[in-house]
Amino acid sequence: MPVKLSVPIAGELLPVPGVQLGVAEAGIKRADRKDVLVIRLDEGASVAGVFTRNRFCAAPVTVAKAHLASGKPVRALVVNTGNANAGTGEQGMAAARATCAALAKLLGCADEQVLPYSTGVIMEPLPVEKIVAGLPQAIANLNADNWFDAAHAIMTTDIVAKAVSRQVSIGGNTVTVTGIAKGSGMIHPNMATMLGYIATDAAIPQPLLQQMVKQAADGSFNCITVDGDTSTNDALMLIATGKSGVAISEANRGEMQAAVTEVSTFLAQAIVRDGEGATKFITIRVEGGRDAAECKQIGYAVAHSPLVKTAFFASDPNLGRILAAIGYAGVDDLDVQKLRLYLDEVLVAENGGRAASYREEDGQRVMQQEDITVRVALGRGTAAATVWTCDFSYDYVKINASYRS
Amino acid sequence: MPVKLSVPIAGELLPVPGVQLGVAEAGIKRADRKDVLVIRLDEGASVAGVFTRNRFCAAPVTVAKAHLASGKPVRALVVNTGNANAGTGEQGMAAARATCAALAKLLGCADEQVLPYSTGVIMEPLPVEKIVAGLPQAIANLNADNWFDAAHAIMTTDIVAKAVSRQVSIGGNTVTVTGIAKGSGMIHPNMATMLGYIATDAAIPQPLLQQMVKQAADGSFNCITVDGDTSTNDALMLIATGKSGVAISEANRGEMQAAVTEVSTFLAQAIVRDGEGATKFITIRVEGGRDAAECKQIGYAVAHSPLVKTAFFASDPNLGRILAAIGYAGVDDLDVQKLRLYLDEVLVAENGGRAASYREEDGQRVMQQEDITVRVALGRGTAAATVWTCDFSYDYVKINASYRS
Repeated sequence: MPVKLSVPIAGELLPVPGVQLGVAEAGIKRADRKDVLVIRLDEGASVAGVFTRNRFCAAPVTVAKAHLASGKPVRALVVNTGNANAGTGEQGMAAARATCAALAKLLGCADEQVLPYSTGVIMEPLPVEKIVAGLPQAIANLNADNWFDAAHAIMTTDIVAKAVSRQVSIGGNTVTVTGIAKGSGMIHPNMATMLGYIATDAAIPQPLLQQMVKQAADGSFNCITVDGDTSTNDALMLIATGKSGVAISEANRGEMQAAVTEVSTFLAQAIVRDGEGATKFITIRVEGGRDAAECKQIGYAVAHSPLVKTAFFASDPNLGRILAAIGYAGVDDLDVQKLRLYLDEVLVAENGGRAASYREEDGQRVMQQEDITVRVALGRGTAAATVWTCDFSYDYVKINASYRS
Repeated sequence: MPVKLSVPIAGELLPVPGVQLGVAEAGIKRADRKDVLVIRLDEGASVAGVFTRNRFCAAPVTVAKAHLASGKPVRALVVNTGNANAGTGEQGMAAARATCAALAKLLGCADEQVLPYSTGVIMEPLPVEKIVAGLPQAIANLNADNWFDAAHAIMTTDIVAKAVSRQVSIGGNTVTVTGIAKGSGMIHPNMATMLGYIATDAAIPQPLLQQMVKQAADGSFNCITVDGDTSTNDALMLIATGKSGVAISEANRGEMQAAVTEVSTFLAQAIVRDGEGATKFITIRVEGGRDAAECKQIGYAVAHSPLVKTAFFASDPNLGRILAAIGYAGVDDLDVQKLRLYLDEVLVAENGGRAASYREEDGQRVMQQEDITVRVALGRGTAAATVWTCDFSYDYVKINASYRS
């Protein structure tokens, strides 16, 4: 079950003026399941996004990037679950374009003003006719209050829908930020699709919006994945409708960025908390490094180690496995004599070995918690980085051996 | 259960003149278990080895490298299971040195002529007094015919002992090569200790022997692990006693190298076949690359993907997961249009998507085998590399969540 992650409450998700959402049951993979989401934007909205860097990136990613690059204002986004339309060659490109064309026709805009997204099984033809057939249903229920349904419509192996709203006062005016996300293949998040859609009613010019979504991703989704090692379909989109009348520029960017990053971080952490089979949420904080890159490198080595993750699952303070992972992370001139390892506040290792003060029962106590912080102090600089991950359980194998995701 | 790996037959393991082996039950972690191995070498033997590059390398690795570097002829190797003596700081160094000193005293040689090895739990003090107390028992049963017992004495989570002999005729004379190994934490082999000891009665000068062990490791143990990303304790040692009277030089190195690499490859593959929880043995062959490094990089990305490995466990031809792993391997200019993916002889993907000729039942048939070859043709050069791995089962989690290895 998800680790300290509760179901979003419909009434607490705030509409973002200028954004309407509609969902449909298109029967892409199963009947009686919301599997298509249309996000319609009023005129004047800006859209920016960051996408997977996987070489086998999915057709919708290629199409969405091309449509964004066309410079035409985006009027709608369309998301389907049940099929990733990845590894599908020319046929897949045609299917993604056909989806956009069908929605554009229904909404009365150009094809390039629609951005497509898919998540689900790879290397199977997209049932584009089912998606197209479902679009009228989604359009029929377009509504600004539909974030709750939207969060559900993009779920795949997710147990809990991920959605959150924040409001921030900028220059005395209230700005709303609401976001949804999907994703739960968290053991190596680089292999499971994560989609995120965040909208605000602030007015943000596209070049600045692009910087802001990149910065938000770096502080959130990119802390649960490896840069450049993302799935075929990952995308995080940021929409600014301008309806609040609050204009964001470099001068007042700070508060806006903080709100967007906060929403983005909540969603990214929610994906970890809902990690496939997860029973623990683990924060890996690496500090005292020469630069953030080496801190992140060590954080990922610990976060990706199946031996470390199974020890967390077992609540076994087999902490030598963490030292081993730090040791092979690839920071070749690391001086292990200067390194200190903490489990929450418990000093576990120093001077190249177990700390004299360490007692097994202290480690055991922390390991039994649902939320655990591993802190590695490298003692060679002032840089730091944080990585979030979850443990590795029987259920992870069960989910991924039995469900064709 | 191990995948097509049978128990070695004691009578088929050939003694190597100049090498005697003795084992003891020292009760390091459990009673009634062989957990100490002494390998005694006659005068005149050469010894070379390759070791882990983990920054948290274990105390015995540091001591073994220092003793080898002293240039004094090696007279004995001593291996204990049950405790890795890693992450143990200065106390661990003292314990490794004390083990060597105790054995040196019993054998009448200098401390530097003894090389120590440990495998087992990390970051717990080595019970050096138990090892020292067990040494006389090991010395008492020193025997050239003891390879079978030796292979058992170094096992940890291994189900099957790993040992093999080969004979090769060089210049009309017969040379014997016998080797043993341990290791089974194969999901990420970089995190589980692998120890290998190979001996021959050929005469090989130490500098050449060092080249030969490096070459053998690169073609075997380093195909089941990531260069530089090894456990705290990994070591592969090559011993040449010279007792056959056959002298190896650059001129006749080829046949000797082939025999050593063959033994080394058998042992490395045996470790994969006995991988924790393994039900399938998977060969990943990447060809048509610009250089071997990029081929290996892609091979490892596929081999390390938990999503790919759980699909193999489930015999589910969810082959898009392989494409996704190839795509995020980090070869940035890979042209997926030129890539072809085969499962054994079945063409699965080409032109960026599923091959027109591919039928699910063909993929299903191959996935149900115990031995599977994944072949990736990159279509961008002539280099190739092979990586061996196993699948990822419930039992992997069970073993690593319940056994403090």
